[in-house]
Amino acid sequence: MPLTEFNLIERYFAHKDPRRDDVVMGVGDDCALLKVPAGFELAVSIDTLVEGVHFPEGTSPEAIGHKSLAVGLSDLAAMGATPAWATLSLSIPEIDEPWLQGFSSGLFALAKKYQVQLVGGDTVRGPLVISMQVHGFVPEDRALCRSGAKPGDGIYVIGTLGDAGLGLRVVQGKSSANKNDADYLRKRLDYPSPRIETGLSLRNTASACIDISDGLAADLGHILKASGVGATLQVDQFPVSDSLRNTVSLDESIRLALTAGDDYELCFTVPMEREAALEELPVSCTRIGSIEAQSDLRLLDANNLPYPMERNGFDHFRK
Amino acid sequence: MPLTEFNLIERYFAHKDPRRDDVVMGVGDDCALLKVPAGFELAVSIDTLVEGVHFPEGTSPEAIGHKSLAVGLSDLAAMGATPAWATLSLSIPEIDEPWLQGFSSGLFALAKKYQVQLVGGDTVRGPLVISMQVHGFVPEDRALCRSGAKPGDGIYVIGTLGDAGLGLRVVQGKSSANKNDADYLRKRLDYPSPRIETGLSLRNTASACIDISDGLAADLGHILKASGVGATLQVDQFPVSDSLRNTVSLDESIRLALTAGDDYELCFTVPMEREAALEELPVSCTRIGSIEAQSDLRLLDANNLPYPMERNGFDHFRK
Repeated sequence: MPLTEFNLIERYFAHKDPRRDDVVMGVGDDCALLKVPAGFELAVSIDTLVEGVHFPEGTSPEAIGHKSLAVGLSDLAAMGATPAWATLSLSIPEIDEPWLQGFSSGLFALAKKYQVQLVGGDTVRGPLVISMQVHGFVPEDRALCRSGAKPGDGIYVIGTLGDAGLGLRVVQGKSSANKNDADYLRKRLDYPSPRIETGLSLRNTASACIDISDGLAADLGHILKASGVGATLQVDQFPVSDSLRNTVSLDESIRLALTAGDDYELCFTVPMEREAALEELPVSCTRIGSIEAQSDLRLLDANNLPYPMERNGFDHFRK
Repeated sequence: MPLTEFNLIERYFAHKDPRRDDVVMGVGDDCALLKVPAGFELAVSIDTLVEGVHFPEGTSPEAIGHKSLAVGLSDLAAMGATPAWATLSLSIPEIDEPWLQGFSSGLFALAKKYQVQLVGGDTVRGPLVISMQVHGFVPEDRALCRSGAKPGDGIYVIGTLGDAGLGLRVVQGKSSANKNDADYLRKRLDYPSPRIETGLSLRNTASACIDISDGLAADLGHILKASGVGATLQVDQFPVSDSLRNTVSLDESIRLALTAGDDYELCFTVPMEREAALEELPVSCTRIGSIEAQSDLRLLDANNLPYPMERNGFDHFRK
């Protein structure tokens, strides 16, 4: 590796706050050396962002830095894990110092918020591709998995759905929104907020949990498959933002809520006897349906009539 | 993420041997859940390979799969860590099943050899970029770091130096070799052998250790800097293969040994009183010089005269 890479890691990525006591050796040797506390399992997730695929060209380097870490933290949130460390693999076409400065500041602002230490990395010359692995702790046998949903459980989501997907369409010029709404939607696309505190709160409450990176239908589908169950959703209950409602039709808002990715909210299931505990969550959640023994996903409208998925052209997700 | 990605991970990367008892949850949830044994530190390293930078175009997918894991295992070896788990981030331009099959078979052949379980991954559409993180265990306070070299320590390397660098030049048509030598050098480039057993053996013996990924001068330089020392090397002692000797001049062999990367051998330092223990290493090693209090790197020839680095045009590495 060229000397430039070494300097670059030193300048933008090594020796940043926070410094954690459980890091024996961070950036600067062949490996990082880390201590997992006794009685905890290590939760890890690796995610990759590619320009033009996971963020539109022209996205600010601060947003890319933020998002690179946020998507992993969202996975930790979905497991009910406490964040601890991250590693970064950065492939960049050229050494662009303002870009690196922006990327680094977006990344470390979020890292500081959740006390995540960057403990290792690799920087190479190549097309812009960013891989980040996050590491967190969860008490033994207490992780929130996808496989625990049971018939009768309520299905909940945090926050609002479809904002990031609509934000992307606005950026691409495929939808138009007023300036305030466009700004809000763009912020939801560029700066997703990992639901760490909510994930921790749900450890005692939820029977299954996932983060919504690929759209509600796809991600809830992973819970249904892993749990061997089905579900009915009430489309009129989908939580959508004012900005989304201002910008698209009702049918389109339902389609976005069901199929648009990148919101990084949590979708989780809760047994009826534990639903009261949801009042103590740090953010409000919305009940959007219930788990059933019958497989597959069904949609009902406000009149409890089947909602015709074909109308929005997304029948193909049901397979 | 499209459904195709899900199927692709399932088909080529999930549920492969080995399955380890310390993996609570592997591929298939938001995070993998892992158990680090009590009394051990977790050693992690992430590396990225880009086509045309870290392997030449036309490299077989089997070799790319092997190398993707081997470079990380080499970092574990350099810390004296026992390999345990890996995660893979794969950016590929298209779903090319024969390529994926080859990549997967090269990767898992090496994973099986060292009982490494692939516990997580992300597959995205983009330029061909492969990131892999490896995870291993090392007893508390027993890792081999770069910072422990002391004046008087001997400097050693495992195996032979410069083969991979010359192999690349042969592939690129910049050097010509007879077929046997070309095959050998190409194999050294494509299928590096991580020195795991040697790294474990060195835990009681070496004062500092690094793997040679960027060339002896650069990597030994990291030890010198981290340890606050300098060194003198005897260039006539550099271990080189018959194939390298057959193909290039003596001066060129020295230049390759000093500056060519990708050999993934170990370079380590040993206090004089422990040098006898090296006879028990699983592979033979070569003493190439010694650590000195005076900073910087000096080279001596067979007559103990200064070897003029300028002659080979690599004076720039000394900075």
